[in-house]
Amino acid sequence: MRLQHDDRENILSELDRTGKRLIDQRPTAVNLRWAVERVLRVAHAATDVAKSVSTEAQAILDEDIYWNRCIGMHGQTLINTGDRILTHCNAGGLATSGLGTALGIVKTAHAQGKAFSVYVDETRPLLQGARLTTWELKKCGIPHELICDSMAASLMRQSKVTAVLVGADRIAANGDTANKIGTYGLAVNCHYHGIPFYVAAPSSTIDATLATGEDIPIEIRDAAEVTEFHSVQTAPDGTAVYNPAFDVTPGHLVTAVITETGITYGPEYCFGRPL
Amino acid sequence: MRLQHDDRENILSELDRTGKRLIDQRPTAVNLRWAVERVLRVAHAATDVAKSVSTEAQAILDEDIYWNRCIGMHGQTLINTGDRILTHCNAGGLATSGLGTALGIVKTAHAQGKAFSVYVDETRPLLQGARLTTWELKKCGIPHELICDSMAASLMRQSKVTAVLVGADRIAANGDTANKIGTYGLAVNCHYHGIPFYVAAPSSTIDATLATGEDIPIEIRDAAEVTEFHSVQTAPDGTAVYNPAFDVTPGHLVTAVITETGITYGPEYCFGRPL
Repeated sequence: MRLQHDDRENILSELDRTGKRLIDQRPTAVNLRWAVERVLRVAHAATDVAKSVSTEAQAILDEDIYWNRCIGMHGQTLINTGDRILTHCNAGGLATSGLGTALGIVKTAHAQGKAFSVYVDETRPLLQGARLTTWELKKCGIPHELICDSMAASLMRQSKVTAVLVGADRIAANGDTANKIGTYGLAVNCHYHGIPFYVAAPSSTIDATLATGEDIPIEIRDAAEVTEFHSVQTAPDGTAVYNPAFDVTPGHLVTAVITETGITYGPEYCFGRPL
Repeated sequence: MRLQHDDRENILSELDRTGKRLIDQRPTAVNLRWAVERVLRVAHAATDVAKSVSTEAQAILDEDIYWNRCIGMHGQTLINTGDRILTHCNAGGLATSGLGTALGIVKTAHAQGKAFSVYVDETRPLLQGARLTTWELKKCGIPHELICDSMAASLMRQSKVTAVLVGADRIAANGDTANKIGTYGLAVNCHYHGIPFYVAAPSSTIDATLATGEDIPIEIRDAAEVTEFHSVQTAPDGTAVYNPAFDVTPGHLVTAVITETGITYGPEYCFGRPL
């Protein structure tokens, strides 16, 4: 796409189109929309459009890195030596920025000398846990074991999980939390086993325009993610697939949400009002 | 292994060794041990050892095929038109004999003209659902959709699952059921969502010598099943893995067990006594 630098209106409408395309890539997550809209707002008000976009994008990144440090500091108070934390998908620096959100908490607790270990859900179908989370934990020297998603409940029954800690893609005003598919089943199992279920996310993840999670759109992805692996077919030709990328965990199953401003315990969520 | 046909004692001790090796392949399942011990018992009492082994093995197969037909007939009463049955792993003819156990029920209900569909858990790490169950259902023309194991709970929350139906590798006297890893988490989610959770298995799966499932040995399998796929590495070098092949679902989470003799509703199990 060639920007016509002599035409401010053209640049702005190109930006709007590109912004929309970016937002459309992730209908479930709200941070991306929030960030894109923030950049567009600044761009539309600026004289030097290009410079304003770059400055605002950098400001968002800097903020996010700082917010994740704050999330880490607040959240680490929930982790103790001897804990065995289970996490799902990647909520580390590879998926967010800086330390990451849920993994930022784990890294901060580790940096403070707490001795604990992490169970990593591999997170089918895209294996973000196996590919990314293990890599980040290994880099930090945090003891961990990789499991298939279906093994988490059995570990809970054996009292081997002391807390579940995940990120979020969008949180409604009542605490209903959209996150990687499989999160909801974990939350139900935490509820059944009396294990705390924590969500970590910057406040840009909170969508106060939604009273509940019912209206969060869930991205449905390609069948081949489930029927193939690295181009190796794993199911018969033409097998029908249901492949939602996210699920919604009701707020009443969330023990607490950790944001850069602190820890909010459920079920008295108040994300629609000042904390 | 060369059998010395002129030496009955040698043949029998070879048989005993081979039987033990077979049994050791599947420490969790009890049917295999039951069948091997039954053959060995007959062989030790027979004059023509070779013939007795072959005859008894064929008798076990014939019985199992018949029992699975009976399981299908009893179990199909639990399936109605409009149902959406979720199943885990493969409990069909590819894993058992004849119609299969849980899948035998599904096939029998389908043959009777009931119109329902099946959600198939892919069943990590070995993907028996994706590879085997879809194949059997397709062959029978039964509508089905493949999902990742972590998607089941979300379907339940959307009221899209009317029952869960699985097989079993060993059932203790109190109904505690060892089955493919992931079964327990499904049972907890069924309990939470008020969805019936059915176990189908021939009575040879019931181990009345065990009061509870606590003493069922759980086979721990190779890490590479989780860190590789078709020799493609999916996790960093040296990643530690916990890979149990089975879990145990407590009997109080099992709505009913379907065997060749009928349907036994929990929690009043009486597998240690005549039904």
